[in-house]
Amino acid sequence: MTFELPKFTPPDFTSEKFANANEIHVEEVKKDGIAPSGFYLTRHMPTYYHYKDKWILPEHNSQNCVAVLVDDTIVIKELNDLVVGDKVVMGKETDGTNGVVVYKEGFDESVVSMPGRSVETSFTDDYEYLFELMRHEKENGGYIVWVLGPSVVFDYDTRIGLSELAENGYVQALLAGNAMATHDLEGGYLDTALGQNIYTQVSVPMGHYNHLDLLNEVRRTGSIDKFIADGNVKDGFIKTLNRLDIPFVLAGSVRDDGPLPEVYGNMSEALRAIKEQTDKATLIICLATMLHSVSTAELASSYRIREDGTVTPVFMYSIDVTENVVNKVAQAREYIGVKTLVTNVQDFVVNVQKSLLKPVGELQAEPVEVNVHEYVEKNTAKEESKSASELKIK
Amino acid sequence: MTFELPKFTPPDFTSEKFANANEIHVEEVKKDGIAPSGFYLTRHMPTYYHYKDKWILPEHNSQNCVAVLVDDTIVIKELNDLVVGDKVVMGKETDGTNGVVVYKEGFDESVVSMPGRSVETSFTDDYEYLFELMRHEKENGGYIVWVLGPSVVFDYDTRIGLSELAENGYVQALLAGNAMATHDLEGGYLDTALGQNIYTQVSVPMGHYNHLDLLNEVRRTGSIDKFIADGNVKDGFIKTLNRLDIPFVLAGSVRDDGPLPEVYGNMSEALRAIKEQTDKATLIICLATMLHSVSTAELASSYRIREDGTVTPVFMYSIDVTENVVNKVAQAREYIGVKTLVTNVQDFVVNVQKSLLKPVGELQAEPVEVNVHEYVEKNTAKEESKSASELKIK
Amino acid sequence: MTFELPKFTPPDFTSEKFANANEIHVEEVKKDGIAPSGFYLTRHMPTYYHYKDKWILPEHNSQNCVAVLVDDTIVIKELNDLVVGDKVVMGKETDGTNGVVVYKEGFDESVVSMPGRSVETSFTDDYEYLFELMRHEKENGGYIVWVLGPSVVFDYDTRIGLSELAENGYVQALLAGNAMATHDLEGGYLDTALGQNIYTQVSVPMGHYNHLDLLNEVRRTGSIDKFIADGNVKDGFIKTLNRLDIPFVLAGSVRDDGPLPEVYGNMSEALRAIKEQTDKATLIICLATMLHSVSTAELASSYRIREDGTVTPVFMYSIDVTENVVNKVAQAREYIGVKTLVTNVQDFVVNVQKSLLKPVGELQAEPVEVNVHEYVEKNTAKEESKSASELKIK
Amino acid sequence: MTFELPKFTPPDFTSEKFANANEIHVEEVKKDGIAPSGFYLTRHMPTYYHYKDKWILPEHNSQNCVAVLVDDTIVIKELNDLVVGDKVVMGKETDGTNGVVVYKEGFDESVVSMPGRSVETSFTDDYEYLFELMRHEKENGGYIVWVLGPSVVFDYDTRIGLSELAENGYVQALLAGNAMATHDLEGGYLDTALGQNIYTQVSVPMGHYNHLDLLNEVRRTGSIDKFIADGNVKDGFIKTLNRLDIPFVLAGSVRDDGPLPEVYGNMSEALRAIKEQTDKATLIICLATMLHSVSTAELASSYRIREDGTVTPVFMYSIDVTENVVNKVAQAREYIGVKTLVTNVQDFVVNVQKSLLKPVGELQAEPVEVNVHEYVEKNTAKEESKSASELKIK
Repeated sequence: MTFELPKFTPPDFTSEKFANANEIHVEEVKKDGIAPSGFYLTRHMPTYYHYKDKWILPEHNSQNCVAVLVDDTIVIKELNDLVVGDKVVMGKETDGTNGVVVYKEGFDESVVSMPGRSVETSFTDDYEYLFELMRHEKENGGYIVWVLGPSVVFDYDTRIGLSELAENGYVQALLAGNAMATHDLEGGYLDTALGQNIYTQVSVPMGHYNHLDLLNEVRRTGSIDKFIADGNVKDGFIKTLNRLDIPFVLAGSVRDDGPLPEVYGNMSEALRAIKEQTDKATLIICLATMLHSVSTAELASSYRIREDGTVTPVFMYSIDVTENVVNKVAQAREYIGVKTLVTNVQDFVVNVQKSLLKPVGELQAEPVEVNVHEYVEKNTAKEESKSASELKIK
Repeated sequence: MTFELPKFTPPDFTSEKFANANEIHVEEVKKDGIAPSGFYLTRHMPTYYHYKDKWILPEHNSQNCVAVLVDDTIVIKELNDLVVGDKVVMGKETDGTNGVVVYKEGFDESVVSMPGRSVETSFTDDYEYLFELMRHEKENGGYIVWVLGPSVVFDYDTRIGLSELAENGYVQALLAGNAMATHDLEGGYLDTALGQNIYTQVSVPMGHYNHLDLLNEVRRTGSIDKFIADGNVKDGFIKTLNRLDIPFVLAGSVRDDGPLPEVYGNMSEALRAIKEQTDKATLIICLATMLHSVSTAELASSYRIREDGTVTPVFMYSIDVTENVVNKVAQAREYIGVKTLVTNVQDFVVNVQKSLLKPVGELQAEPVEVNVHEYVEKNTAKEESKSASELKIK
Repeated sequence: MTFELPKFTPPDFTSEKFANANEIHVEEVKKDGIAPSGFYLTRHMPTYYHYKDKWILPEHNSQNCVAVLVDDTIVIKELNDLVVGDKVVMGKETDGTNGVVVYKEGFDESVVSMPGRSVETSFTDDYEYLFELMRHEKENGGYIVWVLGPSVVFDYDTRIGLSELAENGYVQALLAGNAMATHDLEGGYLDTALGQNIYTQVSVPMGHYNHLDLLNEVRRTGSIDKFIADGNVKDGFIKTLNRLDIPFVLAGSVRDDGPLPEVYGNMSEALRAIKEQTDKATLIICLATMLHSVSTAELASSYRIREDGTVTPVFMYSIDVTENVVNKVAQAREYIGVKTLVTNVQDFVVNVQKSLLKPVGELQAEPVEVNVHEYVEKNTAKEESKSASELKIK
Repeated sequence: MTFELPKFTPPDFTSEKFANANEIHVEEVKKDGIAPSGFYLTRHMPTYYHYKDKWILPEHNSQNCVAVLVDDTIVIKELNDLVVGDKVVMGKETDGTNGVVVYKEGFDESVVSMPGRSVETSFTDDYEYLFELMRHEKENGGYIVWVLGPSVVFDYDTRIGLSELAENGYVQALLAGNAMATHDLEGGYLDTALGQNIYTQVSVPMGHYNHLDLLNEVRRTGSIDKFIADGNVKDGFIKTLNRLDIPFVLAGSVRDDGPLPEVYGNMSEALRAIKEQTDKATLIICLATMLHSVSTAELASSYRIREDGTVTPVFMYSIDVTENVVNKVAQAREYIGVKTLVTNVQDFVVNVQKSLLKPVGELQAEPVEVNVHEYVEKNTAKEESKSASELKIK
């Protein structure tokens, strides 16, 4: 029995709305970064542009952007990325009058819905759909982008869970900020996150130095890559990504200490680097960050045109303990392919890990190795489990 | 390596504070339900009462209650339960002046802590401790009391998870309200919770009738027991408890529809029935209900005197998606043996279930009886995994 | 220019749906508290019942209740209140087939809306509408019912604000629980709430005794009324209500200490007492209590039939710092006349007080008496302001 | 009775800890942006540096920074701002061993406290203290910095409240992001915020274009200043600041549309511009933004050395509807001079406005044009106030 992605029904171009439509009208950008007044503002709903008697569905869309005619096709650009001479699609109508048709009917109700999700909502179905989807994407060349807030790496199990998901092919890119990467590397460098032992949560002496020391030392070596290559990092999600050559984009903010050398301090550059990843995304999973989740929700295309020409939704799972955050993300996606769960991301990651990585039969081949409350024993156990998982890779 | 409950260090009664202490002074209750002015107000901290040259640690304590001398021992009573003639311990000092010593030093730091828990706190250690604790209690005649809000049974997996935990000996009593039981029975009777299919979350036609219909029909039969015996309930947590003769106490509130026949409409009676369960508790797990959690936190003893005379803490796990709730519970326990997790209880239950019930090769006795609804594809997929897991059992 | 309540447009009974409708069918209750199977379940949407060729709009409605034919009119009853012989309206259709028509079109969009309110929503308009509404109700014999959680009386200003609103005719009834009344009386008796000075928030010595001492002493006198009459209470909302003969209903819960003598320990009785108040309500304001707010939202009629036969909505304002709570209340009202504000109730009360009680011109005739940071000065200042407000009353 | 800022008690330098202290040891920066290993990490607690037999208290401090010796004094720098040759203070001890003494005793309990603030906390005292403080700062050349999230300008009253506070001397600088300024300008340009009328909240046709149109048009003119000068903005907080020459710093993020020309896209430059303002701050008020609040909390000095040499705390008020946010801010200040209120910022602003701007008989210079409670009048009044404010422009 095969999992299938929801089908997108292409429009009937012989129908009245399309058949009677005009062609798009474009005007040229006169000044970098500024659209002609009266420009068409893009949305996440699949949108067709009528040009030279053809209906163009752009390869990617975005919300609150500008549609630019480039070589007989349509490219969606941020206002900030417009350059002089860009041919911008004009008009506000979406019914074909200006050659633009927003086509809401392509995805069915299972894809487009207006949730207003609360913590009481039942999640079983969403979880099971996610597991199916992740397996499907893994096996069919999908591109799963994770968007992570810093709290995901404060927890010992979550940090392992993310690493194992990466090792098993469920992570193709990471979008995050300086704090997330710093705390994860601090864990691998000094066993702490913000000075607390990541397993026992006990504050270590002078632990408040740890994340600044980590930042300073990475900056000294010049890059995370070099810092890891020098043997400074025992474990962690960033180390795993580094080893597996999985790209990560770290976008800066005014709240950053350091920052790490790889962090984009310039927002335009950050957005371009993020877009490079989201343009490949077939599934996006956002955990515990309002800033990065909403940014990605606006930026990332809501659909992908597969090689065979079929159109599939880019599902976005938004997980946060605050209802307000996930509802904001859903809104920023215009409710297309958004699934929201109101929960702690630690549980989410562990749940996903346990469900995807323990296939029937080899379930917990080793007895649950828990109960390592004494500090020394725990460290030993961690070394063992690490070597065990490294063995798997060989 | 064996799990051990934290040790309570009894006081050194030859130390100055105890050696120089007076004996308790009692006064008689003159009117039912009213303590003499100047009565001693009880706390969750272990407290010794000096009487006839002995130091008495009551079998149970409670917060905001009254200490009554009964047959040379001390019994802790609610104000409301005092009767004329009760001999009430007097005085406010806790240093022995009035024969009362609050002894904070008995439990060490791992038991008593002031968390101020936030959603970013790492939970790995707390989960692992819980798993150890639950196994330990199960194997050593412990009594695990669950306190559940209604949202725990809106979710398909959570409902199954709770049932399986009960079947495997991890539930000795349930404290809840009318809504929790009603929704669970509605699921077993009509496949819905508040009119939504509990698996697909799709609203069924006239579904808003379902929980009132359920209430009306149970009321007609006269009891939940009879309603289940008549074959009306396919599955669910209440049915499982009923089958296994595990007691449940349903306390009423002004918000109740119906209510179910078993619901205590009188608060004094409800509290008495609850106390009967908490007096046996060795571990209490509170999920997604502020009302019942805080009530239980105040009422339930913070320690238990085991048969061999040792004193062990009654651990209380408080799980809620709102920081404010779990912090309130912690405060109501005076931070003794409280562990708080800020998360969705659905994930909590599934996490506990997966961690406790899938040890190598010995899955739970009866196959998961599931009950897959619409969604043909999903049915098939799940059938496969079910048969696979059944294979394992053989 | 006069404020006007939104108009309800009565149905056109000559329209097809009404003209072709059948008459209601009733069946008799055979056992107290149990409806005949197939009973009609009531909703908050105005509903007409066809009987003896007339269309009856019941004087009050409620959600999740039963419609009973009494003396040629329809009375809405809780399941629990049904008695043998009651003639219950049957059928689930709402289009006239069974003599029942749910009439959604009576109130316009300004009254019925589906908010999904978040903290970012602008509140200006809702506040101004509330101020108009409260003035209107005060001047036109309205009945404003306040539903209060305990946290409203922890704050010095809020406690004064509520009292002044009552003194000025903006409070006709209070619905609350034991804790709210206890904390308020503790403030008036001992200057603390849960042992903290209600102005400085500083914990007083042995302050944890205060609320139990208060409870015990009120219980000793036998009633709040007697306790106040004996001169024990200096100020507070309950004292103000007592002085002004404004009724309050205190409903019990399993979380109550004490409780106060006036607290209904029996839930059926509590609900009946509450309904007596809500049946008169023309405006309901719910602050910081999920339990009581949702209960009232279900119970209280969504409209009132005024003496001249016009129908007006019973507006309900739900104020809570948690989005989830206010959205739940809105849902329980079927979004009829619900206004929700996500904020701290302290600010809400102070805002309402300042806006309603300080009309232009005589604004702050007395200087702002603030700045009393030292404890002694503050106490003096409080005494002064108290005597000032007492003067006003004479 | 005069309000007085809390006194800082300077240390007794003849006491043992100081008398026996070594002098600081410094090492030179070898590479821009990288501290020597073993550098001293700064904190918010007042810290003295021993050099050339003097004890230096730096003019400003910050958390998680580096102390640099410059011309016989100590300057606190971000890691990122270090340049080759900077002489960095070394060592981790804070007891004088390395010439560094962290002096916790300077501020008393009323200034330094560990709250763990919840929504139930009483706010009366904090509000009154704030009002005193703001009046004091206004009259004594203080510098009040506001840190604002976007939601403060969605509400009509809040937008007016902020403007009036600025006009009356209670705002010396604004720190915010692109969204806050954009929504405020959208309100002044097109009467909407994110396409909803800022007064009625009704969505206007094609309103989703509004904020992008605003951004595009400001970008076309080249600056907010020019855009306002051209007469495009009727009212709003940014316009008020512009007219009064009050500086604002807009820091970029990956979530920004546009952005506005004044927005710092480069994080280092943003931080430098922010620091320029916080270095003058005597009071900081943070509303509804976790990102900017925590950033400012870390960056801004916790004290200010006044002209007469006395040291006063830089109070920070953090207001947010989420407990988690305000507690994070408090922690980032090391609990020095932090006051936290869990509430909706709309109410906070209106409360502050009403309390500060309506002193006896001398209402603010221009009459408050508000108080238009009748609905029709309100609409009229808005037209009037608009034309009034347009007059001002001419």
